[in-house]
Amino acid sequence: MKILEYEMDRDEIVDITPDIESFVKNCEKDEGAVLVFSVGSTGAVTTLEYEPGLLNDLPRAMERIAPYSDSYEHHKTWNDDNGSSHIKSAVIGTSMIVPFSKRRLLLGTWQQIVLINFDTRKRRRRVILHVL
Amino acid sequence: MKILEYEMDRDEIVDITPDIESFVKNCEKDEGAVLVFSVGSTGAVTTLEYEPGLLNDLPRAMERIAPYSDSYEHHKTWNDDNGSSHIKSAVIGTSMIVPFSKRRLLLGTWQQIVLINFDTRKRRRRVILHVL
Amino acid sequence: MKILEYEMDRDEIVDITPDIESFVKNCEKDEGAVLVFSVGSTGAVTTLEYEPGLLNDLPRAMERIAPYSDSYEHHKTWNDDNGSSHIKSAVIGTSMIVPFSKRRLLLGTWQQIVLINFDTRKRRRRVILHVL
Repeated sequence: MKILEYEMDRDEIVDITPDIESFVKNCEKDEGAVLVFSVGSTGAVTTLEYEPGLLNDLPRAMERIAPYSDSYEHHKTWNDDNGSSHIKSAVIGTSMIVPFSKRRLLLGTWQQIVLINFDTRKRRRRVILHVL
Repeated sequence: MKILEYEMDRDEIVDITPDIESFVKNCEKDEGAVLVFSVGSTGAVTTLEYEPGLLNDLPRAMERIAPYSDSYEHHKTWNDDNGSSHIKSAVIGTSMIVPFSKRRLLLGTWQQIVLINFDTRKRRRRVILHVL
Repeated sequence: MKILEYEMDRDEIVDITPDIESFVKNCEKDEGAVLVFSVGSTGAVTTLEYEPGLLNDLPRAMERIAPYSDSYEHHKTWNDDNGSSHIKSAVIGTSMIVPFSKRRLLLGTWQQIVLINFDTRKRRRRVILHVL
């Protein structure tokens, strides 16, 4: 098990594939699957082609599901402004599993594992890796 | 492997973290990951900050993706009214994996594992737990 | 580990449950969980009731999140037309885990494992199966 940490801006998307590749290269197995788990309720993990266009397109599309400027009951509970962040995180999800063989992740050529910070402020986000 | 059961209302969200914590506490491993799988095509599992505001905000946001009152071809197949429920379940997903260490789930402080009943009627929902 | 391949049209949804059932029947374990991973950044895996109505309803609902005709910065990067496909894939996700017992998948009666090709053209899609 390993914990990765990333300082992230609002709606920032980070390519965490190299860090997971390096974890898998040094693990005890040649073949298997690695759990990628994002700690917290305003982050998310998924796969995405990591290129500059989509880094803007994806957060913009998520605004259609949960617009920042909408009114959320969550804001009444905490006098907070990140109700939309929680919903985006719950929809995309916080856990995924990626298979590997010969110590290499079996991703598509244009498929990267990304961590997203949907919170409305800078956050230090943690990701837990665990070989299954 | 263990099966949990919950009687759930329409759009109800249940915090199933305590039941999973208790399963993990009594399992054969100190460290690992637990599969949480929601049986059926109108339920979903994800993580969410479990507080009263978001329990209303999340179902309301999901209506933007699949409004109940829209017309669905699914309704013609079965003369049913839960086409939107199936879509919400498919989007959020029915499986997730959560890591644990020293027999405790490695969740964020405000991050709970929730089961959602998107069906348009009361349902007895089942969740399968399995240590990996 | 096994790789399945499917020739798929745009927005086609394939029921891959029988292929996964057959993989599980012939694997080394009686009880466990199987990883289902969709390779590439314009495909997705989830569970769905596999009936003709929903095969139209789901792609139509996904258009609410990422309409094909919207303008995407991704298109500027590659002079491409599938920005919406990438977003739909990232939202639904590319990995899931399904438990099995006595060599049978523990799905609901109306719950099938489906592969979706969100790309805007025909694609040969690959799915990796791995018993955990």
